[in-house]
Amino acid sequence: VAELRAASEKVLQTRPHLALQYGPQQGYGPLIDYLRQRIAQEEGLSLSRANFTLTAGCADAIDRVCCQWLQPGDVVIVEAPSYFETLMIFQDHGAVPVSVPVDEGGLMVEVLEKRLVALDRAGRRPRLLYTIPSFQNPTGVTLAADRRPELIRLAREYGFFIVEDDVYRDLSYEGQVPASLLALDQQAGGGNVFRIGSFSKILAPGLRLGWLIGPPCLIKDIYESGVRCTGGGANPFICHTVSELCLSGFLDSHIENLRHLYRERRDIMLKALEVHLPSQVEWTRPAGGFFIWLQLPRQLTSQAVCAAADAAGVTVLPGDQFYADNDDHHHIRLAFSYLTVEEIKQGVAALGRVMHELLRHESVQ
Amino acid sequence: VAELRAASEKVLQTRPHLALQYGPQQGYGPLIDYLRQRIAQEEGLSLSRANFTLTAGCADAIDRVCCQWLQPGDVVIVEAPSYFETLMIFQDHGAVPVSVPVDEGGLMVEVLEKRLVALDRAGRRPRLLYTIPSFQNPTGVTLAADRRPELIRLAREYGFFIVEDDVYRDLSYEGQVPASLLALDQQAGGGNVFRIGSFSKILAPGLRLGWLIGPPCLIKDIYESGVRCTGGGANPFICHTVSELCLSGFLDSHIENLRHLYRERRDIMLKALEVHLPSQVEWTRPAGGFFIWLQLPRQLTSQAVCAAADAAGVTVLPGDQFYADNDDHHHIRLAFSYLTVEEIKQGVAALGRVMHELLRHESVQ
Repeated sequence: VAELRAASEKVLQTRPHLALQYGPQQGYGPLIDYLRQRIAQEEGLSLSRANFTLTAGCADAIDRVCCQWLQPGDVVIVEAPSYFETLMIFQDHGAVPVSVPVDEGGLMVEVLEKRLVALDRAGRRPRLLYTIPSFQNPTGVTLAADRRPELIRLAREYGFFIVEDDVYRDLSYEGQVPASLLALDQQAGGGNVFRIGSFSKILAPGLRLGWLIGPPCLIKDIYESGVRCTGGGANPFICHTVSELCLSGFLDSHIENLRHLYRERRDIMLKALEVHLPSQVEWTRPAGGFFIWLQLPRQLTSQAVCAAADAAGVTVLPGDQFYADNDDHHHIRLAFSYLTVEEIKQGVAALGRVMHELLRHESVQ
Repeated sequence: VAELRAASEKVLQTRPHLALQYGPQQGYGPLIDYLRQRIAQEEGLSLSRANFTLTAGCADAIDRVCCQWLQPGDVVIVEAPSYFETLMIFQDHGAVPVSVPVDEGGLMVEVLEKRLVALDRAGRRPRLLYTIPSFQNPTGVTLAADRRPELIRLAREYGFFIVEDDVYRDLSYEGQVPASLLALDQQAGGGNVFRIGSFSKILAPGLRLGWLIGPPCLIKDIYESGVRCTGGGANPFICHTVSELCLSGFLDSHIENLRHLYRERRDIMLKALEVHLPSQVEWTRPAGGFFIWLQLPRQLTSQAVCAAADAAGVTVLPGDQFYADNDDHHHIRLAFSYLTVEEIKQGVAALGRVMHELLRHESVQ
């Protein structure tokens, strides 16, 4: 917070007229350059300014992509489960979601291929595929490195765009994440992947700032849209302020701190789950991000567990809503990122008590 | 700028976690309450929180309305001329614009009725009508008080929504603007008008913050859309900061200052036009806002005048692009708001020289 205060003060001192006016439609150039450099350093990817546009966070990025390329009735491939609020954006644009399951290696690309073949036979091709490949929301799993080139191949073969929502990419607690779909797409000739990043998970969601990377001609369509022409680039004042935070080196050290903090919370939650949860419950072991995904035994429904947990003062999300077709009732999403170590310990213990209680009740009936 | 600095500092000191997190989807409550109170005081309109949602400026408000209610192929009635970048938003949503001319009393409601009758005969009804009733961009004219109830009547009769873009409302230099379409709609039973306001013209466009007022059930549809669910309310940090500026009383005095400043600039521009422009050129005399609209004689085209003015170091906008059908070549938009008194005098003098020169050349040929 102190750094943010200093940054916004500096902006208002040194360039108030620039930061408070309409900004360039594509976004503030120096901030784009910072992102380019960072990506070059971390991933060895060489991107030009033309590959980028800044957005008012990830939601705005997805909405822009939908505005530009989705027609009502278009098929969008989504992961099952996936982040349900994003699914709403696709639905708002009239898209028809088609689900492909996720296992511990992320999106099941073999199943995807079968779906594509079946759609193709029915004379349909998807327009977009939406994936969160790193530390997915809600499962925490990461798309396996060997599935990624396959996914790119399918996108090229069936002519759809991949929307790679990679907002958790920087929050890795066990070394490098696999090469991004964007990177693999570029190696394959490019043109099939949009990658979304955001300052929401690594700085603050209240700033509403993110970025979209993609093929220059398609990115240009987005920042030359009516909304950008009318309103200018996304959040100019915030762009300037965040740019200060990035160029001062604060962001890098802040991400390092977050990694330590969240890794500790994850480890404590995983340990607490081992201790407190019934043996019939299974869960993912995410290598980064915010989330752990619980799979309940058949006797327990997510609704029953969440309601009982809520009554015990613990808020967890039922997994049902993360499925476009809402047909799952045995998963729960836990988030470890916002809680203190003590809250995690007590929360998981309470959740364990609730589950044991429900199972006992169940076996008595 | 000093006040903005103080406000953002206060926010980061007193409630950083609130301001930097995802905000409520509808927008920050206290800021909505401030707007409600201000409108009650200025216009005697009694609105509830449920009538409001905050938006990332006017562009976002229009885009949200389009996302919610426009299907590709829907007819949108627009003013001729109107603000061309907004027209692009409608086009991005696949709307079919139908133009209705504007005269010195604003939108020609009698012509509108004829268009509606003709559309109705063809089995079509417009979905939206977009108007800037106060100090319109680009003409500077205001919709006459006696045309307003007629417009509401037509909206009810033909079942379309009016999008009242009233972002210049506060910048009146000659007393009160007529009752807003929103106010008249409420008197008539309500349900047909969305009104858009923005901090862009009265504070700073780089903040990207505005508001949308409308019937509660329709407003709710907007803030419960996928984009708002995913990203939360528009720009939380900026909401908190602007709220400080509003509640401290700064905004009111700032608007008063702007009125004085811009009124002087308008008066000087109008006087300079009298002195320097050829007698065949006519122009509007706006009672507020930013713009004066020049009508050129037949011998002069906007393109020729703008190109020659540009060569003389004066930037003015050709009127052509303000028409959805692009068939006008004899208007020019001048903006007096961003220029100093000296720049206005020199600019208009140069523009006058350019016009006289072109007319002389024309009469010689």
